[in-house]
Amino acid sequence: MFEQHPYGKLIGEYIKNVQYPSQPADLYDPIQYILGLSGKRIRPMLVLMAAKLFGKENIEEALPASIAIEYFHNFSLIHDDIMDNAPLRRSKETVHKKWNDNVAILSGDALLVRAYQELAKCAPEKIPSLLNVFNKIALEVCEGQQLDMDFETIEEVTEDDYLEMIKLKTSVLLGGALQMGAILADADEEQQKFIYDFGVNLGIAFQLQDDYLDVYGDPSSFGKQVGGDILSNKKTILRIKTQQLAEGKSKEEFEELIHSKTISDEEKVQRMKNLYASLDVDQYAEEIKSRYMDLSYNKLEDIAVSEVNKTELKDLANQLLHRTR
Amino acid sequence: MFEQHPYGKLIGEYIKNVQYPSQPADLYDPIQYILGLSGKRIRPMLVLMAAKLFGKENIEEALPASIAIEYFHNFSLIHDDIMDNAPLRRSKETVHKKWNDNVAILSGDALLVRAYQELAKCAPEKIPSLLNVFNKIALEVCEGQQLDMDFETIEEVTEDDYLEMIKLKTSVLLGGALQMGAILADADEEQQKFIYDFGVNLGIAFQLQDDYLDVYGDPSSFGKQVGGDILSNKKTILRIKTQQLAEGKSKEEFEELIHSKTISDEEKVQRMKNLYASLDVDQYAEEIKSRYMDLSYNKLEDIAVSEVNKTELKDLANQLLHRTR
Repeated sequence: MFEQHPYGKLIGEYIKNVQYPSQPADLYDPIQYILGLSGKRIRPMLVLMAAKLFGKENIEEALPASIAIEYFHNFSLIHDDIMDNAPLRRSKETVHKKWNDNVAILSGDALLVRAYQELAKCAPEKIPSLLNVFNKIALEVCEGQQLDMDFETIEEVTEDDYLEMIKLKTSVLLGGALQMGAILADADEEQQKFIYDFGVNLGIAFQLQDDYLDVYGDPSSFGKQVGGDILSNKKTILRIKTQQLAEGKSKEEFEELIHSKTISDEEKVQRMKNLYASLDVDQYAEEIKSRYMDLSYNKLEDIAVSEVNKTELKDLANQLLHRTR
Repeated sequence: MFEQHPYGKLIGEYIKNVQYPSQPADLYDPIQYILGLSGKRIRPMLVLMAAKLFGKENIEEALPASIAIEYFHNFSLIHDDIMDNAPLRRSKETVHKKWNDNVAILSGDALLVRAYQELAKCAPEKIPSLLNVFNKIALEVCEGQQLDMDFETIEEVTEDDYLEMIKLKTSVLLGGALQMGAILADADEEQQKFIYDFGVNLGIAFQLQDDYLDVYGDPSSFGKQVGGDILSNKKTILRIKTQQLAEGKSKEEFEELIHSKTISDEEKVQRMKNLYASLDVDQYAEEIKSRYMDLSYNKLEDIAVSEVNKTELKDLANQLLHRTR
């Protein structure tokens, strides 16, 4: 949906034109492979949009920082896919499946270093602040991934812990990308905080929506198997809220659905949906998503630039959150 | 041998006093574990020694850069140990054995980010140059590790390729550590290059010596099984040179020793040593080590500071290369 945006093209061109050493092939081929799987490039675009929002004239000067964010994101995908033993990424083989775990570990490492090489191309006087933001979010993303793995073996995850995990694993990167754009445009710390919070809350709302759409989304437009999270017993906001609210017969039904190995896929999805409906957790998920969405939009309103200049970021947020307002 | 050096204590204290978040435990415990295995801390000491060599007064200001080097080194150990499936590191369980591969991947990633966090603590006007050097060597270390893994499946590795691999995998980090110290002490680019080259050549000489000592070292002081490299068919300088020189009967003997599964360990080591002696590759290994050692000392002599100030680095080099001059 954003591939046609001029910033998306700018980013795509930059990535396509990077020259890599031909050797060692198993170090650099996987990097070119994953970068070529052409995701939506939303994160690097956020850097450029925030720089523009705060009045940066020459947007190309923000490009290396935006590429650093895109490289970091792809590094984390390569390593997460090993840890999650994921066979596919963007409908193509993951790096560790196409090559092997060792190649995925090392080419991921090299891509992380290359992210820092892009940061080093920014205006020297900006590098210390950019480095601080980048390091902070990079470490938080690692913490989020570890929490996510920890949750797999915890029987009952609390809602607060879940929200903290998705904030660290996916949302701080959106916030940090925006903050880096703000830094490049000389925005002050208060404004940096507003746009960071806009991004973090947007990211949380987006992730909560993802949980919701996995169950209630339109299969033709969602692009994944509906109910996949239910079938894999994934600890989504819907499951966590259900586990919190279920008592008596509801609790028995929940436990049976989670643990039974004889219920068919179709039946499991349908009965879990019935349980969600009986406890109104579908409604709750929509409400909590709306709460973070509102927090996000409010932060955007706090930013001290003219409303008309916020249109682009508002449109992007709306599209991400499938809204039309 | 350097643990009692005041810089070693400074570095040890700094690392011991770092506060880590208590959660996620599987992210931060492995970091504290590997840093606590107390290696020789040679690499971080090189940063401080180079800073002092070029006249830096307040050596504590070079400490964050030195810690960044130590963190990077330990990050690479964690990930290399996964790739090499190594059970032990400094006589203790490796991170991936004590925990698991996923924990080792992610805590390694986090430690690399923490290395960059230390870099970000340096004087802001130094950060861009330090970042450039650090990024370059970090990427080269990844390239060296990939080449090393590639060599496992190549039948005949050339001497030049081998020297390039050990340079990238282990030596550039020594050179880069020294260069970072020089940068912190405002040394000019020519002087930075001299001390970088001193470190790189020292590292190559050290690695060649390691190959030699594996076969000819005193078992009581070497601390490893003598002949371990021969038994594992490791592509050391001795093996590479033998493969290059062997013809006729020597070649047959070499092939038999490499491929036979019935020869006892003791016999294999003895017969390979006889083969080395017949082709003078033991002597060759000593010669080539000396060549890099001389290159290294020459670079140290080129540096434009008084000879007396070079004593400390010369002593360290002598100790590393088991020399008494």
